[in-house]
Amino acid sequence: MLDTGRTARRLESYVQGAWRAGAGEGKPLANAATGEVHAYIGSDGLDFAAALAWGREVGGAGLRAHTVHERALMLKAIGLKLMEMKDEFHAESLATGATPKDAWPDIDGGIGTLLTFASQARRELPNAKVIPEGAVETLSRDGSFVAQHILVPMRGVAIHINAFNFPVWGMLEKIAPALIAGMPCLVKPASSTAYVTELVVRRILEMGILPDGALQIVCGGVGDMLDHVTGQDVVTFTGSATTGRKLKSHPAIIANSVRFTMEADSLNAAILGPDAGPDTPEFDLFIKEVHREMTAKAGQKCTAIRRIIVPKAVEADVIAALSARLAKTPAGLPDAADTRLGALASLGDRDGVREKIAEIAREAEIVFGDPDKVEVISGDAEKGAFLNPVLLRCTDPMNAHAPHEVEAFGPVATVMGYDGLDQAIALAMKGKGSLVSSVFTNDTDVAAQLVLGVAPFHGRVMLGNRDSAKSSTGHGAPLAPLVHGGPGRAGGGEEMGGMRGVKHFMMRTAVQGTPRLLSSVTGQWVAGAPAHQGTHPFRKSLAELRIGDQLVTESRVITEDDVEHFAHFTGDTFYAHMDSAAAKANPFFEDRVAHGYLIASFAAGLFVQPDPGPVLANYGVDNLRFLTPVYFGDSLQVQLTCKQINPREGTVYGEVRWDCRVTNQRGEVVAEYDVLTMVAKSWPLPQEG
Amino acid sequence: MLDTGRTARRLESYVQGAWRAGAGEGKPLANAATGEVHAYIGSDGLDFAAALAWGREVGGAGLRAHTVHERALMLKAIGLKLMEMKDEFHAESLATGATPKDAWPDIDGGIGTLLTFASQARRELPNAKVIPEGAVETLSRDGSFVAQHILVPMRGVAIHINAFNFPVWGMLEKIAPALIAGMPCLVKPASSTAYVTELVVRRILEMGILPDGALQIVCGGVGDMLDHVTGQDVVTFTGSATTGRKLKSHPAIIANSVRFTMEADSLNAAILGPDAGPDTPEFDLFIKEVHREMTAKAGQKCTAIRRIIVPKAVEADVIAALSARLAKTPAGLPDAADTRLGALASLGDRDGVREKIAEIAREAEIVFGDPDKVEVISGDAEKGAFLNPVLLRCTDPMNAHAPHEVEAFGPVATVMGYDGLDQAIALAMKGKGSLVSSVFTNDTDVAAQLVLGVAPFHGRVMLGNRDSAKSSTGHGAPLAPLVHGGPGRAGGGEEMGGMRGVKHFMMRTAVQGTPRLLSSVTGQWVAGAPAHQGTHPFRKSLAELRIGDQLVTESRVITEDDVEHFAHFTGDTFYAHMDSAAAKANPFFEDRVAHGYLIASFAAGLFVQPDPGPVLANYGVDNLRFLTPVYFGDSLQVQLTCKQINPREGTVYGEVRWDCRVTNQRGEVVAEYDVLTMVAKSWPLPQEG
Repeated sequence: MLDTGRTARRLESYVQGAWRAGAGEGKPLANAATGEVHAYIGSDGLDFAAALAWGREVGGAGLRAHTVHERALMLKAIGLKLMEMKDEFHAESLATGATPKDAWPDIDGGIGTLLTFASQARRELPNAKVIPEGAVETLSRDGSFVAQHILVPMRGVAIHINAFNFPVWGMLEKIAPALIAGMPCLVKPASSTAYVTELVVRRILEMGILPDGALQIVCGGVGDMLDHVTGQDVVTFTGSATTGRKLKSHPAIIANSVRFTMEADSLNAAILGPDAGPDTPEFDLFIKEVHREMTAKAGQKCTAIRRIIVPKAVEADVIAALSARLAKTPAGLPDAADTRLGALASLGDRDGVREKIAEIAREAEIVFGDPDKVEVISGDAEKGAFLNPVLLRCTDPMNAHAPHEVEAFGPVATVMGYDGLDQAIALAMKGKGSLVSSVFTNDTDVAAQLVLGVAPFHGRVMLGNRDSAKSSTGHGAPLAPLVHGGPGRAGGGEEMGGMRGVKHFMMRTAVQGTPRLLSSVTGQWVAGAPAHQGTHPFRKSLAELRIGDQLVTESRVITEDDVEHFAHFTGDTFYAHMDSAAAKANPFFEDRVAHGYLIASFAAGLFVQPDPGPVLANYGVDNLRFLTPVYFGDSLQVQLTCKQINPREGTVYGEVRWDCRVTNQRGEVVAEYDVLTMVAKSWPLPQEG
Repeated sequence: MLDTGRTARRLESYVQGAWRAGAGEGKPLANAATGEVHAYIGSDGLDFAAALAWGREVGGAGLRAHTVHERALMLKAIGLKLMEMKDEFHAESLATGATPKDAWPDIDGGIGTLLTFASQARRELPNAKVIPEGAVETLSRDGSFVAQHILVPMRGVAIHINAFNFPVWGMLEKIAPALIAGMPCLVKPASSTAYVTELVVRRILEMGILPDGALQIVCGGVGDMLDHVTGQDVVTFTGSATTGRKLKSHPAIIANSVRFTMEADSLNAAILGPDAGPDTPEFDLFIKEVHREMTAKAGQKCTAIRRIIVPKAVEADVIAALSARLAKTPAGLPDAADTRLGALASLGDRDGVREKIAEIAREAEIVFGDPDKVEVISGDAEKGAFLNPVLLRCTDPMNAHAPHEVEAFGPVATVMGYDGLDQAIALAMKGKGSLVSSVFTNDTDVAAQLVLGVAPFHGRVMLGNRDSAKSSTGHGAPLAPLVHGGPGRAGGGEEMGGMRGVKHFMMRTAVQGTPRLLSSVTGQWVAGAPAHQGTHPFRKSLAELRIGDQLVTESRVITEDDVEHFAHFTGDTFYAHMDSAAAKANPFFEDRVAHGYLIASFAAGLFVQPDPGPVLANYGVDNLRFLTPVYFGDSLQVQLTCKQINPREGTVYGEVRWDCRVTNQRGEVVAEYDVLTMVAKSWPLPQEG
């Protein structure tokens, strides 16, 4: 069937700093919709141990030479350039059988994920090479022994073994967090659509933005690569459970405790709430969403809806409504305007889906479609891997297995009826762990009960109702800030989730020591570490300011007049400030106390340096705690210490976090907080051009 | 050698709600120091599938009926009672060969760990059944589609397979986070010291504090238990790498993607900084610590120091100083007052250690001690599992393997010299992943370089110097707030780490939907969710207050007079408030702006209800951000909404977190923050008794 002429492109691998074709002619890859040879693939003869070593040594060192923000900015630059090139990727993607609409989440969505990671990392992580995590823990009464966790890049290679269905997104959603973390990547796309991934990686490498060795790709098999993994490498896998299990129990992965993230089979459910009868907007949204998730990408999505869990009373309505929509979903060539259903990735995949349908059909009946007959409105029904939608219905879903466990990776789903919310939850659980389920309801009690019931079995649960009909990102869309992955049969992995995803590629280490030594490791001032007094630190630009620069202010006595005055000026006449008897009745106070906001305001009055200077603005306050009541006659003093300096790339200033502690005349801390300021990198500020 | 009389105790297993002896007589367990039979163990014939099912159904439901704080308080009550009983545990522990000093970290440290988790959970986690995690993510421009991650207990059993060396701590440090998470536990102690664990579990169950099924124990083998694990169970393992690898690749664990945490072999290092010459306090601290970590618990600690990495120039000094101390470490019966070194856990263990020493000695020379000769000051050198300390020296450590990889689980360590910090780091890395290493230096540059160099290979790094000589908790002590576990050869697991450890036993699920539906799931008010106005919410006790109760205040105009007045009153005369021209030159402002603290103070004046009432105190502010400058003439209005209610167990009040947003006359948010208050559970407060 396949054309054996050599006009099609020979895919190459980029390893050890060069594009290399494997030995031999390579295996032909067919265009999914036409059956013609689109490319040749093969990686025989490549030295995988050397590729890993090159990644670890050259790529790792190159990435670790940069800060988190610098690495994020590389991804931003890459993402913006890729966005300009996306037409080329869309054209190449047609050979996978995906329609342009199908390819949107892959190509545009993938680039968007890269850009989201790049901006979230700059917003949420410090511009540093070491990321401190969590609070400083005090381990001794005198404060001389403390601890903090830090995150540093793992010293290995992140090996990403990806699935065929998202050749672009699947690659970008994994390299984004790894590269931000400072870990070099080696991508191994699934062969059948590797030509799209190869093209995108080629374009990325041509940009010359990434350090040498930060990104490698293997087109073809990975040979003996996994024999060479170490405890510093990370392996992520997306694909079939069978392959995933084999890789996960690979001797070198087990022996070296290699972090292994797997995303595999998942029979995701959509649950219709009992409140969402056929006359409600939720019913219509449910039908639309199920139809979309059955047919988008011809059902070849790990997040596709496979199980349609509905109240028994409306089962027939659901089947009727869905069938009507499925009947209007013609299959055809991906680039034909009237095509609503593209091709599967290969003829072999079609055979596989038909086998799985037959398995499910042993415990369910087909109520729409015929897996053995193919109808197309364009293209060749037999040369292309086309398959029309199939809807099944399971009448005894509480005792069935195949509809919950057999994943037909095509436009196929099973309707199952439930009696009561507990049974709906029990049915969802029978998937034994899924990536995502959705719940359609407009009832808060139903929402709470169903979501909390199914949550332990899912990485993501989407609630659909009338109010988010237009704004919802949909059941099927993993999003960069949210975790993607599910427990049990879904593989037990966790990807993305915002900065959580970055941490998957870093080592978390608890560091203990004196505040002075700990500060030198984390790059943050830790209470108790030495401080430097002298010039008012607000007079220092980032060029001069150092961690530990400190101001200890004069003292100021708070009087009854101050409190009275502040109360009447602000309107805050809360009784604890105004009425001695009432204050004494309060379990926290012995008498009238100063306002917390007055303490913070006087503190600012004590520490501020009034003249124009490098400190440009106070943009916020974090973790403010009033620890000791302040009574009339108490004397306040402030110690303000430069704790963290976070230069912003591409601007003339950066963020500086100050440790602020206000003490009374007995040395007790009355208030403790972080003051957040914007500080100029140099002073005076450069004139605008 | 073993006495076969049946006077010793037959250990039992607590499964399915009853104490059950296994079939048969059980296997005899010897007293480590005397060789006499101390107990019999066996679990033949127990139904492990039923035990798991009982735990999941009865134990899981019982725990999930409580909030996080209620579960933490159960642990607190258990911990306090165990502390009263600890003499009994210490007496039982003598049979393990451990001296009372050796047993302290196990028994007292274990109970302390339980109590630390109990208090940290109440401090850091909400008093709820669902734990929201991280920020609410806005997924649509109009705010009608948002997301948040939640944590809920996994629905399976946490199976803890523990090591022999910490029969109490090893059990308690694992059940504490699991039970707080809401996951029932099944503990399987290592046979050789299971009598100590069995006794403690017996006492815990006698207290009747835990719900039925929340804690089970199997004394003996686990039979076919692992064949029955599901994707909702969690398995933790501490022990030998060989056993760990076998369990980790168990077909049911792989097939169901069971979370598996492993802590295995670890050749931890102590590194002496080049600044810490023989005449420095750090040198003495280093020698003391290495000696302690070689000989405490007869070296049977997973955190013990096995590799002594020192500057080549001081290698001889280190060997001399260590040898002098080791010579003063007599072995003997654990309860004899002059004993400094107890027995190994069994004669078989002694044989194992001798074999490992022989392996290491192929690449190193013994410089102190003789593994084949035993000297004791009490007890029988052959009936008890005694072994005197052995110190080795490796002269070519950069090319050696055994000293970095062969774990002799006894009082054994190897000295190795380094040239330069890079080589010290390279040597530490040759352990291929360890639990903990320590660095002794008083130099901040050395500290930063060594710690950041070795961090990717360690779960914990301790810095030792003169200033923490008295306060340091030591190289060998895992602490509840810090992660315990290491990458690679150490098993790749992570335990404890404060509330991180609790999350290991929970499912993290991203929930998407409208603010209204999301609020109903998380139990927290989400911006955009419906709010209820009416009675001022400060007039409501926790009995009446509901999530979403809201106050929208009057407006207040900020005038130039206000700003001038506030500036002179507080002393905060920062130019951006005082000087129009200077303010205009600032990149963030168009003219003079109001103080951030003035905005927050006026906001309080607008929202506070002044009379005595259920709101008792404002104890802090979180995440305050000034988002839009406020100019003279701008009008401020506050929306204050009850966001989270956190009743405190055992007090008459609870914490209430209020969402506070201050807007201007154009509806722009000028400031956004959480106001933290203490609110009475009922009002008026009950009279004190």
